Amino acid sequence: MLCRLSPRSSSLTTTRSFLIFSSMSSYSSTSTLASTHGRSPKPRTKSRTLSIDNIRPAVLKVEYAVRGAVPQKATHYEGVLKAGKGDHLPFTKIVNANIGNPQQKGLDQKPITWWRQIAALLEYPDLITNPLAPQLFPPDVLERATELHKEVGSVGAYTGSKGLDNVRQHVADWLEARDGFPADPENIYLTAGASAGVNLIMNVIVRPGDGVLIPIPQYPLYTATLASQEAIPLNYYLNEEENWSYDEKSVLAAIAKAKKDQTPVKALVVINPGNPTGNCLSQDDMRAIIRLCHEHDILLLADEVYQANVFDPINKPFHSFKKVLSSMGAPFHDEVHLVSFHSISKGYSGECGRRGGFFEMVNIVDSVMDQIYKISSVGLCPPLSGQVGVDCLVRPPKEGGESYPRWLEETEGIKNALRDRSLYMQERFNKLEGVSCQEAEGAMYLFPRLHLPKKAILAAEADGKTPDAFYCLALLDATGICLVPGDGFGQKDGEVHFRTTALSPGVEEYVSGIETFHKSFMDQYRD
Amino acid sequence: MLCRLSPRSSSLTTTRSFLIFSSMSSYSSTSTLASTHGRSPKPRTKSRTLSIDNIRPAVLKVEYAVRGAVPQKATHYEGVLKAGKGDHLPFTKIVNANIGNPQQKGLDQKPITWWRQIAALLEYPDLITNPLAPQLFPPDVLERATELHKEVGSVGAYTGSKGLDNVRQHVADWLEARDGFPADPENIYLTAGASAGVNLIMNVIVRPGDGVLIPIPQYPLYTATLASQEAIPLNYYLNEEENWSYDEKSVLAAIAKAKKDQTPVKALVVINPGNPTGNCLSQDDMRAIIRLCHEHDILLLADEVYQANVFDPINKPFHSFKKVLSSMGAPFHDEVHLVSFHSISKGYSGECGRRGGFFEMVNIVDSVMDQIYKISSVGLCPPLSGQVGVDCLVRPPKEGGESYPRWLEETEGIKNALRDRSLYMQERFNKLEGVSCQEAEGAMYLFPRLHLPKKAILAAEADGKTPDAFYCLALLDATGICLVPGDGFGQKDGEVHFRTTALSPGVEEYVSGIETFHKSFMDQYRD
Repeated sequence: MLCRLSPRSSSLTTTRSFLIFSSMSSYSSTSTLASTHGRSPKPRTKSRTLSIDNIRPAVLKVEYAVRGAVPQKATHYEGVLKAGKGDHLPFTKIVNANIGNPQQKGLDQKPITWWRQIAALLEYPDLITNPLAPQLFPPDVLERATELHKEVGSVGAYTGSKGLDNVRQHVADWLEARDGFPADPENIYLTAGASAGVNLIMNVIVRPGDGVLIPIPQYPLYTATLASQEAIPLNYYLNEEENWSYDEKSVLAAIAKAKKDQTPVKALVVINPGNPTGNCLSQDDMRAIIRLCHEHDILLLADEVYQANVFDPINKPFHSFKKVLSSMGAPFHDEVHLVSFHSISKGYSGECGRRGGFFEMVNIVDSVMDQIYKISSVGLCPPLSGQVGVDCLVRPPKEGGESYPRWLEETEGIKNALRDRSLYMQERFNKLEGVSCQEAEGAMYLFPRLHLPKKAILAAEADGKTPDAFYCLALLDATGICLVPGDGFGQKDGEVHFRTTALSPGVEEYVSGIETFHKSFMDQYRD
Repeated sequence: MLCRLSPRSSSLTTTRSFLIFSSMSSYSSTSTLASTHGRSPKPRTKSRTLSIDNIRPAVLKVEYAVRGAVPQKATHYEGVLKAGKGDHLPFTKIVNANIGNPQQKGLDQKPITWWRQIAALLEYPDLITNPLAPQLFPPDVLERATELHKEVGSVGAYTGSKGLDNVRQHVADWLEARDGFPADPENIYLTAGASAGVNLIMNVIVRPGDGVLIPIPQYPLYTATLASQEAIPLNYYLNEEENWSYDEKSVLAAIAKAKKDQTPVKALVVINPGNPTGNCLSQDDMRAIIRLCHEHDILLLADEVYQANVFDPINKPFHSFKKVLSSMGAPFHDEVHLVSFHSISKGYSGECGRRGGFFEMVNIVDSVMDQIYKISSVGLCPPLSGQVGVDCLVRPPKEGGESYPRWLEETEGIKNALRDRSLYMQERFNKLEGVSCQEAEGAMYLFPRLHLPKKAILAAEADGKTPDAFYCLALLDATGICLVPGDGFGQKDGEVHFRTTALSPGVEEYVSGIETFHKSFMDQYRD
């Protein structure tokens, strides 16, 4: 069965995190099911001390749909199934297609052996020199672990706040090889995943009231972070009809509106390859974005965490903003401010649980870099599990080494499975009544559009839900499949989408489940 | 040699993080040595885009001395020594006594074998079932790893934002055993260390302009977090003469002043055992604190990360605030709002690099808990390395198990070494001219007071430094020993302290180094 909870977790312990919302897009203070919990009866608490009315108001505005009401209801169902109380449910397992978490239970993506052998040896270095080690680990793994252990020391020690010097040097070498332009390890920070990097940079640079240009649809980390900082998301819209391509007119319109509103435009976020769209930017569009940032003095924040998830690397390869910027020459290459984020959670590695990633800063002035250093130091350092993971990412086994063939087979298998599933799902979705789905060129999601009948919209309204949430909750209730409603990512007014990952094994069965539900939904609500 | 940097790290790569400040307590935008860096010449950047003048102003007010100017200068020296360019220096190694990082290079604290064997097996689960495994791992380790692997799945997967259900259940069981009162796993969050937990809670509950009562001296995480949130630290002073004991009068004075200033008093921070003081609170004082929080509707934030670092557990044992609160009965036990923080970075484990910890919430209302859940979910989840570490902390090997004797020997050795060093250092410090040092009852630091001659104070002033920074920088320059100036933790006006860890091996040599420096410093500046 998919997504087993631990044997000790009862259905009761999941109730606290299952919130019932009147709408997907508002986290309310509606009471939960906690009162059903037998062990510690809810106390009469003094609301004078801490209540929804005296905590930080900005917090109330934060939304994060990827772990919002639909996923929380899915978690609730998992608890019910786990407790053996799911006989009344029309499904026997939950399919978590809401989050890009490739190694979660129920999915079929295995960790890359190279990574895990090295990690195990660094956790327990006595193994490296154990006489049995050559029977358990290939020579190139033992060699790399020996080198890393000497450099890193104990993975139980804090490192510098920017991460290990040697790993940052390896990242710089890797960036140079990727881009053909120099990279300075002093401009590179290792982070606890890209989210932690984005949060650090936003936290330092964005003032309350500043505007940040955000693609719509976007990964909700950005709007959540801005809401928390009382900053203003300035929406620019991707062109769905042209495969979610970049639309400069929309950015210019957002800038013009911000100027009219006297909102300073601080930064522009680009997600490439796109989440949730799967779009891969052309170099022409990237140059246009860079020129625009230069023209308007806007910091460019490039979320490039899906750079290894590109489905047609020959015809539609990934280009980094660092490379494109560096190749543009003066006045751009030394004047446009850029921060680029990367992660070990995506790509072929999918090592979300290690919490690792890095960012590279380009053209950021020293005085601002000093502040970034200071704020990062309050958090001490990113986890060593993630730092070692970054080293595995940028230093895979060498061609000719004992581990290389296995590494190649594992990574190619993951890449191919993701691409094949994405294409298959897109084709099947496009055959459904009232569904249009752009082909993803990369990343690990699809973001199909639903053209729902009026009757369905009205039913959602009557139920106090957005049409997206209404559809996704109905799908979950009927099939156990957990998607994220499109409004969690942003969309044009009146549109309806959902996001699904392309990670579910048994993709035929998976799509069939959605198809069957969709047909019955349309039968019920067709105008 | 202590604290080797990686072979690939040149002295040049350390220059960016070595800031020259006019004062310890102000991070300025003073230009750094980056321009000496040969690889990527500093570009003409457009300050219009991002500059010290248009980033978030609150950031500028943040200070974090534990990784401040003195440690940064030590890092610079390390780079110089590493590059073989330290012949002019009067020392051959840097002693990092600035930070509680027990497993760092140069110290002698080894990881607990039980933890690392389990971690290695979870990283590379193929080992668990390998026929050679029984030759490498004790049966109880293999049994525990098998159980955890079944429950956790891949350590490369995201977990729920609160952390793994089963680990939270184990924490609850451990808290119940520790305190004799029920603990609900739904009120427990696993975190990326205690700092991440404190940051999450502060981020949700503290409004700009709110006041938070902070002990002086304090661990600078608290003032840094409050500065970042534009909240107001309300200082209350510990009683140095009575072993840094709690002084209710000082808290009441701070509350009275806040009321006069119309500053809402939101929370009271207690660090027990104390950092940097080493004080262990009596139950009487704890009850007084709880009554005060009840009387004034103040949230109690209990930093209890050093709870296992108690030097005389028979006569001065650790009591948790949860236990004391629970034992007080009505109206306190169900009305006082409490969040208690714990960590795997301290205690006998010292696993800082894993980034693990947890907090337990008591009497927090559901609506606020919902907001804490939502904000934690934006950060996805704490690293699995830390979550697995928490499980090792709360479920050590069972008495009678094969791993138990080794675990006991390792943990007792660490506890004894820390206590013995602390007592030894305190005795020697107290024999120095113009130094008074309270005996630490726990934690891993000493915070001696320096009664410096007027001439030294004036020399510091002339040098544009606080007396604390002046002394610590002179010590570093002369000996390579890195301490943290007392003003980074807070102290009464005109006082001078420093914080040292009690982690350095070769403690006689270590103290002798400080003694020799101190004598020559006093000879130079004696009035």
